[in-house]
Amino acid sequence: MIAEIITIGDEILIGQIVDTNSAHIAQELNKIGVSVHQITSVEDEHQHILTTLKEASKRADIILITGGLGPTKDDITKTALCEFFEDTLERDPQVLAHVEAIFAKYINHPISGINRDQALVPTKAIALHNDYGTAPGLWIRKGEKVYIAMPGVPFEMQSLLEREVLPRLIKEFKRPFIYHKTIRTYGLGESAIADRLETWEDNLPTHIKLAYLPSYGTVRLRLSGKGLEEQALKTSVEKEFEKIYPLLSDIIADVNGENEDITITIRQLLEKKGMYLAVAESCTGGELATKFTKNPGASNSFKGGLVTYATQAKEDILNVSHSLIEKDSVVSKSVAEEMAKNAKKLFKADYAIATTGNAGPEKGDSEAEVGTVFIGIATPEKVFSEEFKFGRSGDQVVNKTVNKALELLLKELLS
Amino acid sequence: MIAEIITIGDEILIGQIVDTNSAHIAQELNKIGVSVHQITSVEDEHQHILTTLKEASKRADIILITGGLGPTKDDITKTALCEFFEDTLERDPQVLAHVEAIFAKYINHPISGINRDQALVPTKAIALHNDYGTAPGLWIRKGEKVYIAMPGVPFEMQSLLEREVLPRLIKEFKRPFIYHKTIRTYGLGESAIADRLETWEDNLPTHIKLAYLPSYGTVRLRLSGKGLEEQALKTSVEKEFEKIYPLLSDIIADVNGENEDITITIRQLLEKKGMYLAVAESCTGGELATKFTKNPGASNSFKGGLVTYATQAKEDILNVSHSLIEKDSVVSKSVAEEMAKNAKKLFKADYAIATTGNAGPEKGDSEAEVGTVFIGIATPEKVFSEEFKFGRSGDQVVNKTVNKALELLLKELLS
Repeated sequence: MIAEIITIGDEILIGQIVDTNSAHIAQELNKIGVSVHQITSVEDEHQHILTTLKEASKRADIILITGGLGPTKDDITKTALCEFFEDTLERDPQVLAHVEAIFAKYINHPISGINRDQALVPTKAIALHNDYGTAPGLWIRKGEKVYIAMPGVPFEMQSLLEREVLPRLIKEFKRPFIYHKTIRTYGLGESAIADRLETWEDNLPTHIKLAYLPSYGTVRLRLSGKGLEEQALKTSVEKEFEKIYPLLSDIIADVNGENEDITITIRQLLEKKGMYLAVAESCTGGELATKFTKNPGASNSFKGGLVTYATQAKEDILNVSHSLIEKDSVVSKSVAEEMAKNAKKLFKADYAIATTGNAGPEKGDSEAEVGTVFIGIATPEKVFSEEFKFGRSGDQVVNKTVNKALELLLKELLS
Repeated sequence: MIAEIITIGDEILIGQIVDTNSAHIAQELNKIGVSVHQITSVEDEHQHILTTLKEASKRADIILITGGLGPTKDDITKTALCEFFEDTLERDPQVLAHVEAIFAKYINHPISGINRDQALVPTKAIALHNDYGTAPGLWIRKGEKVYIAMPGVPFEMQSLLEREVLPRLIKEFKRPFIYHKTIRTYGLGESAIADRLETWEDNLPTHIKLAYLPSYGTVRLRLSGKGLEEQALKTSVEKEFEKIYPLLSDIIADVNGENEDITITIRQLLEKKGMYLAVAESCTGGELATKFTKNPGASNSFKGGLVTYATQAKEDILNVSHSLIEKDSVVSKSVAEEMAKNAKKLFKADYAIATTGNAGPEKGDSEAEVGTVFIGIATPEKVFSEEFKFGRSGDQVVNKTVNKALELLLKELLS
């Protein structure tokens, strides 16, 4: 069962928005055993959309389209679909009622003709209810294939996909099983890992593939198997997975690496201990706090954080002593440790992470070389810190600091 | 001059990473007058890569490829390019010296055969120096077209694009001029704006297009013109732009809307006044601080922030009185104002933003309905707050809160 995703919209092609929809759709399809073989982004241009639809239908069984369903003149997905299916638009009374209800309830200006036109639906399509917006999704079955159009606004698309699209796909299509197993490693590069795995990788059965997913100091290794029998598939993937373990045991930090987000693993460990985390951030500027708070239920393990971007805030709020900063400089081992220790105390937490460094491009409040970072960790028993040199590029320094800080904390929680 | 982007890698097709490279490349190409007509993401699969290359070369003059240049077995871009161009790989001594130097300087394990193979380059390609990694970029000219391969690691790709690829494209290709003009509006939906602009939009010259870029409570409107004469193009776009102004004057918040990032506008205004901002975040969990710190030079206008996720932290660190929280609840107008006022004082700032609300999905420390948010703003003269109902979905609530908070602050700075 092969799917393709087509995202429509000039804003993607000129780079004003990043297409996050495709990754979300691909993830969800993968979970139900549908493989995405291609993602194509094209402009709001009638002929180009038609060509793309034609090409995709030669290759795929399921074609998912996002974008171009809005009420404005640059939204032309519906008319393109009408030409593709030799169809016409007709007002759907149920959709119209929904659009009118949304306007009555949430929008403080009168409904207009173009709002009502959101209820125009190709006659060959089933309109899919959009809980969060006025543009319905469309489900068009043609022979063995299905074409699904969804709005481009991420949360509208996500809700439609979950409530309307996935259940229909599960009901109407037979799918093979897909099984992934991912581990997270730290401290060794992609090629050094590949060296260790070479013999094993050469002998992998053909239905199992290995992928390397490097990201700022960590490499996740993902085994993906595909097969018609669920139990046999799982067994074979798990068997290969167990062979990796002894080859990499010194660098594996997280066996539960399915989740791209390591903070979920950390949270589970904290909750199990009934303990809390706080963060004090300088060079990471709020990224650590954001990482912990962006998943629901964070308040069960996360007390909060301080972003002490100005040196003065480190002194006034975090109580790092002025003389220590004068003596060792704000980017130093002692300040990182003091920040961690004091953040733990201030937030009444059990663990704390502190970051202080120079992410560049300018040198800021410190004379430390760009890329120099100290990470401090406070645990219930001790405080320690490590120094890192993360190179030149600003973004890279922040991301590497975040990942390294999470690695250090995870190791403490596991030890 | 038409470009296409091809991103290669299973990790994109199974949704484990979001393809941010394409947006970056598209943005940079647009700036030099190269339009991207299609972005295609395909798996690490030899035949599929070949087909995609063939199709892209039918449509585009410039084909940019990212991904699949790493040292591991799933990296097959180079061999696919060799087959496409009927070429072979040859060791490039300069690239080899660079790979060896990187290993000697940064990597604490010995160089191996597969690391050295990073220096294998198709004989018809020019190797482009990769400052941050071992995989070189490739530049292959064939007749009027050029094929450019870059590594998929974002910061390696970005540096290669900036230093090696764009200067070559500017030198070797004649390009039309592209001119964008974008404004940011607040408080009116896409379709209501479209209603107001209908007559004007119908009369737009064909070389100018209007796009609506909605994002959690704001809509940016972008006029894009394309033409061979720079001055005439600018004049015609500016002329149309001036016609929009009277139609939308009540909802325009930022004429300088080119920048997707409104915090840059805010920062410029703060710096001009010589004033500083601080933030106190509850439901936004660090997102506001991150937004302000992620651009270089933030320390000239941003003091720092507090993420008081736990109610207790609001009392202990932000000095919000226990009795006030008891009386009005933690999600309330008075707490939002107290947080803003105290954050301003604590950080010795001139302005402060505070957020407190219930982003869901669970109710958390407060009984407030999910989606209820109070935003407090402290200025040098006053403190005020507003209540909002941002609907159900967690992500949506956080993003809408961030955008609304930035809007409120911007209005204060402009008033």
